[in-house]
Amino acid sequence: MFQHSEKSQKLLATLKTFMAEHIYSNEQKYAHALHSAENRYAPMPLMDELKAEAKAAGLWNLFVPEDHAEYCDHGGLSFFDYAPLAEEMGRVLWSPEVFNCNAPDTGNMEVFMNFGTAEQKERWLKPLLAGEIRSSYAMTEPQVASSDATNVQLEIKKEGDEWVLNGRKWFITGAMNERTKIFIVMGKTDPNHSSRHLQQSQVLVPKGTPGLTIVRPLTTLGYDDAPIGHAELVFENVRVPAENILLGEGRGFEIAQSRLGPGRMHHCMRLIGTGQRALELACQRVESRTTFGRKLSKHQSIREEISRSFSDIEMARLLVLKTCHQIDTHGVQATLDMIGATKTSVPLMMQNVIDRCMQMHGAGGLTEDYCMAEGFNYARWCRQADGPDQVHQMALGKQIIQRYAESK
Amino acid sequence: MFQHSEKSQKLLATLKTFMAEHIYSNEQKYAHALHSAENRYAPMPLMDELKAEAKAAGLWNLFVPEDHAEYCDHGGLSFFDYAPLAEEMGRVLWSPEVFNCNAPDTGNMEVFMNFGTAEQKERWLKPLLAGEIRSSYAMTEPQVASSDATNVQLEIKKEGDEWVLNGRKWFITGAMNERTKIFIVMGKTDPNHSSRHLQQSQVLVPKGTPGLTIVRPLTTLGYDDAPIGHAELVFENVRVPAENILLGEGRGFEIAQSRLGPGRMHHCMRLIGTGQRALELACQRVESRTTFGRKLSKHQSIREEISRSFSDIEMARLLVLKTCHQIDTHGVQATLDMIGATKTSVPLMMQNVIDRCMQMHGAGGLTEDYCMAEGFNYARWCRQADGPDQVHQMALGKQIIQRYAESK
Amino acid sequence: MFQHSEKSQKLLATLKTFMAEHIYSNEQKYAHALHSAENRYAPMPLMDELKAEAKAAGLWNLFVPEDHAEYCDHGGLSFFDYAPLAEEMGRVLWSPEVFNCNAPDTGNMEVFMNFGTAEQKERWLKPLLAGEIRSSYAMTEPQVASSDATNVQLEIKKEGDEWVLNGRKWFITGAMNERTKIFIVMGKTDPNHSSRHLQQSQVLVPKGTPGLTIVRPLTTLGYDDAPIGHAELVFENVRVPAENILLGEGRGFEIAQSRLGPGRMHHCMRLIGTGQRALELACQRVESRTTFGRKLSKHQSIREEISRSFSDIEMARLLVLKTCHQIDTHGVQATLDMIGATKTSVPLMMQNVIDRCMQMHGAGGLTEDYCMAEGFNYARWCRQADGPDQVHQMALGKQIIQRYAESK
Amino acid sequence: MFQHSEKSQKLLATLKTFMAEHIYSNEQKYAHALHSAENRYAPMPLMDELKAEAKAAGLWNLFVPEDHAEYCDHGGLSFFDYAPLAEEMGRVLWSPEVFNCNAPDTGNMEVFMNFGTAEQKERWLKPLLAGEIRSSYAMTEPQVASSDATNVQLEIKKEGDEWVLNGRKWFITGAMNERTKIFIVMGKTDPNHSSRHLQQSQVLVPKGTPGLTIVRPLTTLGYDDAPIGHAELVFENVRVPAENILLGEGRGFEIAQSRLGPGRMHHCMRLIGTGQRALELACQRVESRTTFGRKLSKHQSIREEISRSFSDIEMARLLVLKTCHQIDTHGVQATLDMIGATKTSVPLMMQNVIDRCMQMHGAGGLTEDYCMAEGFNYARWCRQADGPDQVHQMALGKQIIQRYAESK
Repeated sequence: MFQHSEKSQKLLATLKTFMAEHIYSNEQKYAHALHSAENRYAPMPLMDELKAEAKAAGLWNLFVPEDHAEYCDHGGLSFFDYAPLAEEMGRVLWSPEVFNCNAPDTGNMEVFMNFGTAEQKERWLKPLLAGEIRSSYAMTEPQVASSDATNVQLEIKKEGDEWVLNGRKWFITGAMNERTKIFIVMGKTDPNHSSRHLQQSQVLVPKGTPGLTIVRPLTTLGYDDAPIGHAELVFENVRVPAENILLGEGRGFEIAQSRLGPGRMHHCMRLIGTGQRALELACQRVESRTTFGRKLSKHQSIREEISRSFSDIEMARLLVLKTCHQIDTHGVQATLDMIGATKTSVPLMMQNVIDRCMQMHGAGGLTEDYCMAEGFNYARWCRQADGPDQVHQMALGKQIIQRYAESK
Repeated sequence: MFQHSEKSQKLLATLKTFMAEHIYSNEQKYAHALHSAENRYAPMPLMDELKAEAKAAGLWNLFVPEDHAEYCDHGGLSFFDYAPLAEEMGRVLWSPEVFNCNAPDTGNMEVFMNFGTAEQKERWLKPLLAGEIRSSYAMTEPQVASSDATNVQLEIKKEGDEWVLNGRKWFITGAMNERTKIFIVMGKTDPNHSSRHLQQSQVLVPKGTPGLTIVRPLTTLGYDDAPIGHAELVFENVRVPAENILLGEGRGFEIAQSRLGPGRMHHCMRLIGTGQRALELACQRVESRTTFGRKLSKHQSIREEISRSFSDIEMARLLVLKTCHQIDTHGVQATLDMIGATKTSVPLMMQNVIDRCMQMHGAGGLTEDYCMAEGFNYARWCRQADGPDQVHQMALGKQIIQRYAESK
Repeated sequence: MFQHSEKSQKLLATLKTFMAEHIYSNEQKYAHALHSAENRYAPMPLMDELKAEAKAAGLWNLFVPEDHAEYCDHGGLSFFDYAPLAEEMGRVLWSPEVFNCNAPDTGNMEVFMNFGTAEQKERWLKPLLAGEIRSSYAMTEPQVASSDATNVQLEIKKEGDEWVLNGRKWFITGAMNERTKIFIVMGKTDPNHSSRHLQQSQVLVPKGTPGLTIVRPLTTLGYDDAPIGHAELVFENVRVPAENILLGEGRGFEIAQSRLGPGRMHHCMRLIGTGQRALELACQRVESRTTFGRKLSKHQSIREEISRSFSDIEMARLLVLKTCHQIDTHGVQATLDMIGATKTSVPLMMQNVIDRCMQMHGAGGLTEDYCMAEGFNYARWCRQADGPDQVHQMALGKQIIQRYAESK
Repeated sequence: MFQHSEKSQKLLATLKTFMAEHIYSNEQKYAHALHSAENRYAPMPLMDELKAEAKAAGLWNLFVPEDHAEYCDHGGLSFFDYAPLAEEMGRVLWSPEVFNCNAPDTGNMEVFMNFGTAEQKERWLKPLLAGEIRSSYAMTEPQVASSDATNVQLEIKKEGDEWVLNGRKWFITGAMNERTKIFIVMGKTDPNHSSRHLQQSQVLVPKGTPGLTIVRPLTTLGYDDAPIGHAELVFENVRVPAENILLGEGRGFEIAQSRLGPGRMHHCMRLIGTGQRALELACQRVESRTTFGRKLSKHQSIREEISRSFSDIEMARLLVLKTCHQIDTHGVQATLDMIGATKTSVPLMMQNVIDRCMQMHGAGGLTEDYCMAEGFNYARWCRQADGPDQVHQMALGKQIIQRYAESK
C-alpha cells in the first residue's frame, strides 16, 4: 500500500545516488556555464556529458510507460512508479533533460509512439529517444483562450500535395533550443466542421521550413528558462508535404486530449520535488542562522511554517500518487476529476511552500544563489500551463456538482 | 493500492445502507427529540432503538482493532480499514454512538483493553462494549496548558488504602450524560518526581463518588453537544480504593500517550465525512437554486469553490489513510510526524470546506436546518482538542527541521 | 484629518466611562440572567436599569443622523462621527440596546423618520425612540434569494380598505422579543408591473394581527441571539388597514434601498469593536499564560498573529471611516462601491481576527466564558446579512470593471 | 478629511498628464532600449530626455519634505501630500527616476540634508538633487541578519587621518549604475562599545576608491532591476579621509533609524500604484476577452476577485495615508506601530492583488508584455526589504501586547 514496485524503488535509489554525485555537485557549474554562454539556447557540453553518464547508469527515458516498453531499456514504468523518479528530478529544474525526461519532449515522444507512422517514428522519434534532437509542441496562441483547444485559429489548408500553415503561436517551449528540429503544430483544417472537436489537425513542421519565424523568447517572472525556453512563432505560408499530418485530418483534438493529461501530471510530480527541496533547504537554513539571540529554528512561527509545508507537500504528493494509480488502472478519461484536482492544487500549494521557504532565507532567498526563486517561477507558470487553473476548476466543479446533485 | 480489505468494503456497504435507512431518515426526529427533551443528557429512546438495529446489522464496535479482536464480533479492523467506516459515520454527528463508536468511549474502552485488570474490564469494559454505560476521560484543566500533559495539576494522594483526588477539570466530554458511570482521571501522584513523565497516574472514579461535582456544561460556538457534551468538574477530597489505579503509579503519562494518537485520527476520519457531506449538500443546493437568472451551479465562482472543496477533501482523506496505514505497519510512535500533520491539517481544511458550503446555502446554511453549522463547530473545536494545533506544529516542525538540517 | 468632531469625541469619552462602569461590570450578571431566564425573549430588569442610566448619561439614540436632529437630544451625528461610538458598543454584543442603538430598531426608526406619516410616527416612532417598544423588518424569505430584493414573493393584495398578506419570512430579527410591537413587511403588491423595482410595497403589521404566526426562533452557529433573536414567520390572510402602507404602493424597493446601506455600515462599525476587544483579550491572555517554559507572548508566532490582527483591524476601521465620510458628503447612492467593499471585507476580516484570538485562548476561547465565540458568530452571519457577500461582490466587481475597462 | 492639499492635488493633476503624455507612451521604447542595451547600467538617452521634461513641468524632487523646502522649488510636501504622487509614479516602475524620486537616492539625499556637512552637501547632495549623479546605501550584509542593524560587521577602523573599511555587503541598490558616484556605508567603528547602538558609524566612500569591488549584480525572481539594480560589494582596505564620516563616530545607528521609516513608506506608496494599475489592466482584459461563450467580465469569480482587489487596494491606501498623516503630525518615532503595520501588510496585499491580475491575463500575464510580473517582483522583494516582515511583526506584536496586556 502506497508502495512502489521493486523496480521503481531500485531506480529511485540509483537516481538518488546519481543526483548526489552528478547533479547537485554540478549546479554551480551549470549555472555559470549558462550565465556566461553567448547563446543561451546552444548545446552545453556539461549537459552532454551528464546525459552520457545517465544513459550509462540506466537512467534513460524513465518516462516511457509500460505499454510502450519497446522504446526503452527498463521495461516501462507505470505512472505510479514513475512519480517518485520525476519528483526526484524536480529537485533540480534542469536535471530532467539529463535523463531525457523533460517537457515537452516526453509528451511529444508519446505522441509519436501513439500516433506516428513508421516513417515518422524513424525520422523523429528515434533521435528524440536518443536525446540527439529536441522538439516542440505548438498549440497556445496569443489571441485566443487556448485552454479551450477548440479555439485555436492557426490555419492549415490543403493545397495540392501540401499543407499550408498560417498563424501565430506563443509559449512554444523548446522552440529556441538549437537542437530542436521538429514542431508538432495544432491548427484548423476544417474550421466550419459541424463538430467543434473535428475541426483541428496536427501536422509536423521541421524547423527551418521557410515561412516559420521564431519571433522572440518569452520570459515568465523574469526567467527565460533557457536553454529550453518559451518562444513566440509566426507561420506565414509554411508548406509541408501531405504525409506530415499526424493520425489524420480532423483528429488534432483527439491527439491533444491524449497528450495533456500525462503532461500535467509530470509537472506536478516534479513540482513536489521542487517544493520538497525548498523545504529541506529551509530546514538547513533555520538551523544555521541566529537572530535576536535565538536560532531561527527555535522560533515558533518557523516551526509552524515548516510543519505546514511538510503537511502540504505530503498531501500534494498523495494526491499525485492516487491520481497516477487511477490513470494506471482506469485510464486518463476515467480520471479527469483527479487530474483536474491535482493540476489545480499542486502548483499553487508548491508556490506557497516555496514562498515561505524563500522568506526564511532572507533577501538571498529570492536570488540565483538558491534554486528556490526559479522553482517559484516554475510553480507559478504551471498555474497557467495547459490553461489557467480556473478553466480546469470550471470543468471539475461542473462534474462534481453533477455527481452529487442527485444523491442524498 | 489505496484499496481497503474485502471485509472493510463489505462493512462499508452495509453501513451505507444502514445510514440511508435508519440515520438520514431519522435526523429530523432526532433533532426534534433533543430539542424538546427536558433533560438533554438523558437517554433517548430513538437512540436505543437504533443501537439495537446496528447491533443486529453487525455494525457494532467497529472501532475495535485487530489486536483486540476478542472484544468484537467482526474480528477487528486495522486503522486503515476503519477509516472509511468512521468517515461514513462522520456524515451525521450523532451517529457514531449508534454503532458504539463515539468519542470518548472508544478511547476509554481501548484504555481498559490495554491497561485494565480483569476485574476492571469486567466491571467497566463489558458494559461499555455493550453500550449500556458511558464513560469520560478527565485530563484537560482550566488553569494550565493541558496540551502539555505534564502540566496537569489535579492532586492524587495516597491515604491508607485510598487515593484522594483534589482539583478541577474541564472539557470533560460525556460527563453530563446520564449513562456515564465511570471517569478515568489523570492527575499527579508524585509531583516532585525527577522525571516529568513519571509524576502522573490515572485512576478510575465512579460517577457519584462523594466530592465529585459536575459544575456545568460548556458550549463551544454556542453548541452544548448534548447528549454527550463537555463539562467542568470539581474534585474535592474524592476518595477511591487503591485498586482503582490504572496500570500502576507513575504510569499516567504513558497511558495518555497511547490513547491520544488514535483519538486524533478518529476525529479526522469523521471530519472527512462531515466535510464530504457538506460538499454534497452544497452540490444539491447550487443545482436547485437560481439567482439573477442563472442557476447557482453555473456561476464560475461556485464551480471553483466546489472544485477546491473536492480537492481539499481528497487530500485530507489521503493524508488520513496514509497515516493510518503507517500506524498499522509501524505503530503510533513511528508515525508521530504523520499524526501531527493530520491533526493540524484536516480540521482546519474541513472548517474551511464547510464554511464555503454554508455560504452557498445563504443564511439558512448557518442554522439548525442543515447539519453544516454543527459540523463547522466540530471542525473548529478539533483544532483545540488534545491541545491547540500550534502545540503539535511546534513538535512536528522541530522534528522535520532535525530530519533535514543535516541532509543536502 | 481622520479626526472626529469635538462632540463625537466627548460622547466617546462619556461612552467609554459608561462601558467601564456599567457594561463590562455587568457582563456576567447579564449572561446569568439570560441563561436562567424562563423566557429568553422577555424584558430583562437589568437591561431596563441600564437603559435608564444611559438616558441619564446623554447616551441615547446616538445613531440619529444630523438631518433628523429633531428626534434626539444630541443634535444628530454624521456617519463618520457615529462610527467610533458604534465601535465602542460593538465591544459587548448586547450593549447597543442599552443606548437604543441596536439593529434592527435603528434602521426601522430611520424608515419611520424618512417615510412615515405623522400618525405612523406618533404611534410607532415615538415609543421606539423612547425604547419602550421594539420592531422588526421582514424582508428575507426562505424560498428565494432575497439578496435580490426584487425576488420577494410575499403577496400583498388590496381588498377593499385593507391589505391582505400571504407568505413566509425568516431571519426576522427581533420578532421573538416580547416588546416587539410592529413589523415592517416587504412584499409584492403588483407582481406583474413592468418595472421589477415597482412591484414591491412595505406595510406595517402590528404584532398580534390575526394570521401572523411566529413559527420558531432560528439559530446561527448554535446561537439564538436572544433576547432579540431571528425568527421564521408565516402570514396567512393577515389583514391591515390601507393606511398601513409606507410611502405608497410600489415604493417598497425604494425604501429597502435607502434602509440597507446604513444598516450594513452599522454592523461593520460594531464588528470593528468586537474584533478590537478580541485582540485586547488575546494580548492579556498571551501575557498571562506560559507554555513550554515561555510566556505565550514571547512566541514569535503569537507576535506575528497579534501584529496581523492589529493591522487588519486598523485597515478595516479606516475602510469604515472613509466610507462613512463619503456617505456624509456624497450620499449613499454615490458610495455604493465603498459600501460594497466594506460589507464584503470587514466581517470576514473580523471573523479571522477573532478566530486567531480564540485559538490563543485554548479550548476556553470557544466557550461562553469569553465574548469571542459569540462575536465570531456575529461576524460570520454578517457575511450573509443583507445577502451573501458574493452578491455584493458581483455588483461591486461589475462596477469596478466598468470604471476601468475604458481607461488606460 | 482624507483630502490632500491644493498643492498636492495640482501636482497630481500635472503628474497624471505627464504620465499619459510621456511615460505610458514610452513604456515599449524604454523596454526596448534596455533590452538591447550593451550595458544595462549605462545612462539611457530616453531617461535623460524625460528628466528634462519633468524638470520643465515642475515635477522634480517631489519627495522633498516641508522642513527641507530649501532644496526644492515646490516648497516641500508633507508625507500625506506626497503619497498620491508616489502612488502615481508606482504605476510605471522605472518612472520615479524621471522625477528624481527613486530609491535609494531619495533616502540618501535626505541623509545628506539631515546630517551632511556643508562641504558634503556641496559635493554630493547638489548633483544628486540635480539628477546628475546617483548614490547607494550600503547596509545589508550576506552573513548576518541585517534587519537587526546592530548586526552589521563591516569593519571601519581609524588609521591616522583615514577610515579603513573591510567587509562585504549585498543588495546594494544602485551600485551597478554607471552614474552612481557615492556610497554611504554602514559599519562598525567600535564593535566593543557597551551600547549596541553606538558601535556603528556611516562613512562616505566614492565609487572607484581602491579596494572597493562590485562583485556582481543580484537578481530577485529573475529580475536584475537594471539600470538601478542590486549588487554585491567587497571592501578590502578601502581608505577614505577622516572627514568622510557622517554626523560623527558612533552615530551610524541613529542615521539608519531616521532613514528607514520614510523609505518603507515610499515603497508602500508606490506599491499601491503598482497594484492599482494591475487592477485597471485586469479590468480592461476581462472586458475584452471571451471564453466559453462569455466575456470574462461576466464570470462571477472574476467579479469577486476584482471586488476583492479593489477592497484590498483601498484598505492598503488608507493604511498608508493614515500612517503618513501620523508621521507628519507626530514624527516617525511615535508612529512605529503604524509604520510596522504598513510595511508588513501592503507589500503582501499587493503581491496577492497582482497575482490575481496576472492570472486573469492568461500565460501572457507572466511575461514582459505587461508590467505586472515585474510589479509582482517588486512587491515580493519589499517583503524582505529592510528586513523580512517577520522581524517587523515581532516588534509590532510585542508593542501591541504591551499596550493591551494591562487594559480591560
